[in-house]
Order: sequence, then structure tokens, then C-alpha cells
Amino acid sequence: MRKKLVAMIPARLGSKRIPKKNIRYMGDKPLILYPIELALSVERFESIWLNTESEELGKAAERAGIGFHRRPRELAGDQATNREFTYEFLQKHPCDYVVMVNPTSPLLRKETMEGFLNYLEENDFDTVLSVISEKEETFYRGEPLNFSLERKVNSQQLEPVEKIVWALTAWKRETFLRLQQRGVNPVFGGKLGRFPIPKDESCDLDTPEDWKIAEGILMSRINNFEERYMEL
Amino acid sequence: MRKKLVAMIPARLGSKRIPKKNIRYMGDKPLILYPIELALSVERFESIWLNTESEELGKAAERAGIGFHRRPRELAGDQATNREFTYEFLQKHPCDYVVMVNPTSPLLRKETMEGFLNYLEENDFDTVLSVISEKEETFYRGEPLNFSLERKVNSQQLEPVEKIVWALTAWKRETFLRLQQRGVNPVFGGKLGRFPIPKDESCDLDTPEDWKIAEGILMSRINNFEERYMEL
Repeated sequence: MRKKLVAMIPARLGSKRIPKKNIRYMGDKPLILYPIELALSVERFESIWLNTESEELGKAAERAGIGFHRRPRELAGDQATNREFTYEFLQKHPCDYVVMVNPTSPLLRKETMEGFLNYLEENDFDTVLSVISEKEETFYRGEPLNFSLERKVNSQQLEPVEKIVWALTAWKRETFLRLQQRGVNPVFGGKLGRFPIPKDESCDLDTPEDWKIAEGILMSRINNFEERYMEL
Repeated sequence: MRKKLVAMIPARLGSKRIPKKNIRYMGDKPLILYPIELALSVERFESIWLNTESEELGKAAERAGIGFHRRPRELAGDQATNREFTYEFLQKHPCDYVVMVNPTSPLLRKETMEGFLNYLEENDFDTVLSVISEKEETFYRGEPLNFSLERKVNSQQLEPVEKIVWALTAWKRETFLRLQQRGVNPVFGGKLGRFPIPKDESCDLDTPEDWKIAEGILMSRINNFEERYMEL
């Protein structure tokens, strides 16, 4: 039996370093439409919700064809944590898993989300995180982590280092609720799965500089720059 | 007394996955002109050399105002290592340090190279590597490296993980030659310095996809996309 999946897109109207980030146009559409259209496109969710404190943003979500989950006032500030608003959301939405689709990941491709959902379907994890897996010589606390100073090897032979990116995250509802009620952190709760996503599908959107980079990458997928060579 | 610095830009004419990569236009100029112009712009090198097996590419370097270091035929293949061609180069170019400026890093900014050279000047390292330092929750061999599953903390509180990027590398000539002659790997030789560079200045240029991303980032620095917002 297929698992019952619900999608949650968390979005506040206010944002600090990039004002009104979620409704700002990135390329040809507002940022918030990326996760909404992505979640709709895979046709795999029982329901899709925008989790927001903003009445206007919630209404816009409804116009775009998804549900509006009103985030309570006490969780509307920028201090509210993922743990808190996801707990509040899960109490109200029965499902096997909630999949958090982050609006700050407009570069995510449909195939990647499908891969993530298949991985969720075919395994029995409590939490699945998206990661960027890289085989590069890496230092930790000033010491080589996955390579040796004595020998330079081809990077394909290195052990990968995996960094969490909050593009896609899935939590088993029952585990999340139980851990939170016991006072245990549910964000990394239970049996953990790590799903690697392509490097060019993750981005930060903290600063105006990050925004420009993401927009540049997005544009580069659309524009084919002319192929030209230097004359020798 | 200021250290005597020599710049080496390694470039072959052939390349596998992106044909003739070094002479292909990225944005408004051929890739190879990025490191050449960057090295010239800081006005800090005694001499700047293109290390290449290609007579045509070497001539183009001379026209662009730098020297042509002819890489010997036996080091011209794609199996020749950094270690080998840098050793051959250093035997012929007396200096305190060689700074390798990688042509596959067209996103490097002048200020970053200046910072790197100051760091080199003000310290006494044998090897200085450029790194990308990131404070993100990271797994290694399936286990949390710099975070705890029990507690979600703000990423600013995490210990950074530093990945080597081969954008800029400096080696003390005397140490490099000595280690290589002893059969010891000089690439990570002696006292190691790590210089963090901004994340948007490093890129891979292994695949056509990488190329497009770098070009997109570069374009995003030039173009200011219109700032538009969704109506609510």
C-alpha cells in the first residue's frame, strides 16, 4: 500500500535580508510558485499546504491550487522553529509522512523530487534529509578528514562528505509527534535516511548575492549562450 | 622584504568533457583570459606563466602579456599530475613561492586573490590551499560530524567544514623541490595554510552543466534583473 504523503511549504511573508522574498519574482515567477508548482507536478501528495501566518499569502496559495494552513500567531515570528511549526501542522494533518518543500529551493527539479519520494516509499525511515554529497578533500578542525597528506589521490576515490540542505525533508508523522511529546528533538528523529540531490539544485537565499546567483543558475538553464572559441 | 612570487597558470589545449575548454568563450571572453587578467591585475607577481604543452596557447598567452612556459612532451598528457608539472616548472623558475591560478576558476575576484597573497605574505607556510568553509550540518560515513542529532542549533554555532578548491594554491619553492626529491608528496607539504574564499567564486568546470552554471553566475554579476513582486 502506498504511503500517504502530505506536502508542507513553510513561508512567512516577512523576511529579513531579502525583503518579501517569497513573493519576489525569480526569473519569470514569484519564488513561492516554485515549490507549489513542483509539489503539484509530481501528482503524489494527498494534499499540499502552504504553512503561513499571512492571510494574503495563504489566499494566493489557494488561488494557485493548494491549501492554506494558517500558522498560529504565536508561531509567526522569525524565532519560531521548524520543530514547532511542523509539530503544530502535523497535529492537524493525518498522514504517514509530511514532506517539507522549502521555498528557498527554486532550483529543484521534478525528477529529483520524484527520486526523493521513491526513496521514501521504498524504505522505512522516520526522517529523510536531502544532502549534497561531495568527493572533495575536506578538512575538519584543521585536520584532513577524508584524505591523506601523504598521498594525492583522484577525487573519485575519496569518501564523500554529505552536507544537509533543507530543500526536501520528510518526517514520519507518528514518530515526529511521539518524540516531540516526549521532549526529544524530532527533527533528526528515529531512523535517518539521506537522499543526495544534484549540487546545482541547492542554493542559499539568505542574501541579495545568493538571490542573484540562484537567478543566474536558473537563467543558465534557459539561455543557451553562443558557443564561441578564441582564435589561435 | 617582500616575498618573490611567481604565478603559474596550468592549461592544456585538449580537454575531455568540454572540448577546447580553455579557449572557449565564457561570457565575453575566452576562459583562459580570466586567470591571466586576474594575475596581471594584482600587480604582485615577478612573472606570470602559462604552463602548457600547446604552442598556439603559449603564443596567445604571450600576446596577452604573460610568459609561455613550454611543458615538456612527456608531461603533456591528461595523466600528468600537478605534482609532476609543478616540479618541472619550479626547477626552471627561481622564486620564494609559486602561486597556481587555476583557469577553471573564472569566478575568482581580484579582492580574493589579494587577500590570498596577503595571507601568504604575512605568514610562513609551505603550502597554502584555498578552501570553501561552510557551517552546515554535515555527515561523514553516515554519522553526524559537526552536529548532534539530539539538538538542532543555529547553523552559525556549528563548527565549519572546509573543502579544498583548487582555485588558488601556493607552494614554497624550496620545500616543494626538497620533498619531491625525497619522494615525499609535496602537494600538501610542510606547514599548511588554509585560505577561505567566498562560495560563489568557486566552481567546477568538468561538465557542460558546470559550464552553464558558472556562466549563469557570471552573468548574474553583470545583469541586474528587474525587481518585481507578486500582487497579493
